[in-house]
Amino acid sequence: MLQKINHIGIAVQSLDATLPFYRDALGMAFKGEEEVAEQKVKVAMLQVGESKIELLEPTSPDSPIAKFLEKNGPGIHHVAYEVEDIEAAIAHMLVQGARMIDETPRNGAHGTRIAFVHPKSSNGVLTELCQSGH
Amino acid sequence: MLQKINHIGIAVQSLDATLPFYRDALGMAFKGEEEVAEQKVKVAMLQVGESKIELLEPTSPDSPIAKFLEKNGPGIHHVAYEVEDIEAAIAHMLVQGARMIDETPRNGAHGTRIAFVHPKSSNGVLTELCQSGH
Repeated sequence: MLQKINHIGIAVQSLDATLPFYRDALGMAFKGEEEVAEQKVKVAMLQVGESKIELLEPTSPDSPIAKFLEKNGPGIHHVAYEVEDIEAAIAHMLVQGARMIDETPRNGAHGTRIAFVHPKSSNGVLTELCQSGH
Repeated sequence: MLQKINHIGIAVQSLDATLPFYRDALGMAFKGEEEVAEQKVKVAMLQVGESKIELLEPTSPDSPIAKFLEKNGPGIHHVAYEVEDIEAAIAHMLVQGARMIDETPRNGAHGTRIAFVHPKSSNGVLTELCQSGH
């Protein structure tokens, strides 16, 4: 059902302060930076194998990432798995007894369709399913 | 320098309680379970694309994973990246100004050689380099 880890989302205080570690020290390919206004974050993407690291810096104190940083400090915020057919994946999760925050997919960045698993089911790891937009 | 995400290590209270989510609901291929006496953990491995999820259950209250669970609750414990040449990777990290817990590799499970990045450099994400044993 899952094709791969699409990305690991990491909450950081500052992209500028964190990028050198991922890009220069670990040597990941930097794939660009963008602002996602809806989530009030700036995102830097880096490639590692078939997966990405997404560094998330809040652009406002009421960003979900700002709240996460306040509570936990910097660290991994979520893991996203790529699926081919997100409706089928959600249906399978529900049949298997998992709870979903999103029982119908919502729109993510770049034409992706995404759905979050309910934290009651995912044992402390915020877990996202995503279907690529192309 | 990095070939892929080798695995994400996730601290759990109980493998038996967590496996159904990863194996049955997310549908990852279960690759086996083993005890790593040195770390006082039982490990269940699941495959997703080119990467693995490693669920880590402490077997003793003085396991590093037991201490992590006490402090943080269940959640992601570390991310491990695969490298081809771990000595070269460590040397590159140091030249780039990163601090390492292990400036020379130590032995991991299954003939792997591993090295941890110092938390001062990795912004809240415990980060491991690993070179495969074969």
